[in-house]
Amino acid sequence: VCAMSLQFYSCSNGTHHSGAAQSDPQLFEAQFEELVTELTEQDLTDSVLADALNRLREVLHYNTPGGKRNRGLSVIGSLRELVPPTELTQDAVRRALLVGWCIELLQAFFLVADDIMDASVTRRGQPCWYKRESVGLDAINDSFLLEGSIYRLLRRHCRAQPYYVHLLELFTETSFQTELGQALDLMTAPPGQIDLNRFTMERYKAIVKYKTAFYSFYLPVAAAMYMAGIDSEEEHNNAKHILLEMGEFFQIQDDYLDCYGDPAVTGKIGTDIQDNKCGWLVVTALGVMTPEQRAELESCYGRHDSVEKVKALYNTLQMPTLYHQYEDDSYQRLQKLIARHAQNLPHAVFLNFAKKIYKRNK
Amino acid sequence: VCAMSLQFYSCSNGTHHSGAAQSDPQLFEAQFEELVTELTEQDLTDSVLADALNRLREVLHYNTPGGKRNRGLSVIGSLRELVPPTELTQDAVRRALLVGWCIELLQAFFLVADDIMDASVTRRGQPCWYKRESVGLDAINDSFLLEGSIYRLLRRHCRAQPYYVHLLELFTETSFQTELGQALDLMTAPPGQIDLNRFTMERYKAIVKYKTAFYSFYLPVAAAMYMAGIDSEEEHNNAKHILLEMGEFFQIQDDYLDCYGDPAVTGKIGTDIQDNKCGWLVVTALGVMTPEQRAELESCYGRHDSVEKVKALYNTLQMPTLYHQYEDDSYQRLQKLIARHAQNLPHAVFLNFAKKIYKRNK
Repeated sequence: VCAMSLQFYSCSNGTHHSGAAQSDPQLFEAQFEELVTELTEQDLTDSVLADALNRLREVLHYNTPGGKRNRGLSVIGSLRELVPPTELTQDAVRRALLVGWCIELLQAFFLVADDIMDASVTRRGQPCWYKRESVGLDAINDSFLLEGSIYRLLRRHCRAQPYYVHLLELFTETSFQTELGQALDLMTAPPGQIDLNRFTMERYKAIVKYKTAFYSFYLPVAAAMYMAGIDSEEEHNNAKHILLEMGEFFQIQDDYLDCYGDPAVTGKIGTDIQDNKCGWLVVTALGVMTPEQRAELESCYGRHDSVEKVKALYNTLQMPTLYHQYEDDSYQRLQKLIARHAQNLPHAVFLNFAKKIYKRNK
Repeated sequence: VCAMSLQFYSCSNGTHHSGAAQSDPQLFEAQFEELVTELTEQDLTDSVLADALNRLREVLHYNTPGGKRNRGLSVIGSLRELVPPTELTQDAVRRALLVGWCIELLQAFFLVADDIMDASVTRRGQPCWYKRESVGLDAINDSFLLEGSIYRLLRRHCRAQPYYVHLLELFTETSFQTELGQALDLMTAPPGQIDLNRFTMERYKAIVKYKTAFYSFYLPVAAAMYMAGIDSEEEHNNAKHILLEMGEFFQIQDDYLDCYGDPAVTGKIGTDIQDNKCGWLVVTALGVMTPEQRAELESCYGRHDSVEKVKALYNTLQMPTLYHQYEDDSYQRLQKLIARHAQNLPHAVFLNFAKKIYKRNK
């Protein structure tokens, strides 16, 4: 299960914000350099740290921008649904953008480390950080610095806020869930070892939930909820229920598009089959195939020279039809979840997500 | 600068505790299995996580015990100096032991990762975790799980305490300082590259302070101070001042003993010279040697076949004399710091440390 490419809620911000000079994405963009300056010049002034802080600056610049920033932007996006415009101060907006950057930093922390563990070569169109000359395994400590930056920023900007402890707990807990998901992923599809017996639907869903859905879907909305003063366990559980369902659907769609998407539309060429990924297609296919087909799959999956054979098998098994059935079911399930669990929360928080997810690339 | 081997305050606990059935070290020891059970069985009950939690159990067992536990035990040791015995409830003692284990987990997190970055082979008499068959670079994620366990334990046990946020901040801040120290260390003595121009006393002291002294000396005492209700910035800065000075002395002593200690007494054979370590001896020697001696050192340091030549040079430069001068000066400086800065804090908190450090191995 590779890192998702969230494309769905870009341009969802700024709609309540028509009178302002700059849109949320512009403000978000502009804030990054301020945060780098803060982290590397203002926060720790011990001169003996200069070289270490220069390293941190380089690590921040190379690894934090360059993504689509959807996770980061969805904090302010969600907050705007939860708080009336007149009650949202400029400082509150700035803090929401900052917490958005903390999510981007969390993702950067995981991506730098995951790329080492997965022996990846490129990331966001450039060499992986650890692949750069003179970096190598020092990238492990660099990933720690990215994670540590989160808590320095939260402390500087949110310490006086009533939701400060909630954010600390939310970030540490979400990190741990993601790490458990990565542990499951590593033991299910160890690079270089092909064993389809490990690829079950239950395992697949557990990996998606822990490795991706918590930090990509629940974290940004939960952060916005705490910032809006919503901290009841019940409301968070309800939101979590809906958002984890969305996260699961999103990843399944991502897996489907990896094989069946049009590269001209998705902007990338899928490699899940040759990379021996435990994706939705292979897991679903394993559940509907004959022993003979399974034997064929075992000889073809996870190899560079037989990708087309795997795709032909998927077509024989009518995977596109199975996927579209799943998509329809999931959409119905999600609508019911929102109707049942959204309660006091504005349904728009969730429907904005849903609308964009289910329209994606078709 | 390798990880220190703190040997000084073992057996310092339990002295106020004579009537109880078990000493602090015994209670500490016994608590470990409880914490493992908590982290792997009671805290996350989602059955799909079973394999990931089994992995966590294995990682905890392999990497957390086996050290001398001095950092961990010094939380309760310090708390007993700060709180009168009659005011120290059994629950407070248990929480102090738990926070001690959090420090041991923090250390385990760093050691697992540092061993990968330093390409180390053994740790505490067994193969480094990443060197185990079937672990390899997955150890990176395992180190994250060790770090994440700290915040799960603090949340479970200290959430209702008035000092909870202080502990969260203390652990995240100390982690960041240690990571900055590791970044400095990696750029000063990159494995395999020998360049004595990078070895300055200023850089050496910065590495010791950030990579070792904060987490080994300030962290356990600061945690105990917060648990005792002492949270003024001034008192923490005073304690920090004293404890970082002790940490520096301790590391310098450790570096000295690496070369001049009696293996029969220290229990280990030093390898700093062949490992190209930026230690106190080489840094001090560089400051007092002739250009000819420097040229000789440059051809000998960081190699396995010329350790005796480096030692002969150290003897010519009278390093033992320089060290004992430093030791005497440092002891005087520390006594003054304690007299001037300890203020309301019981001097015993610091003197207990000092007494044991300055007696060590002579």
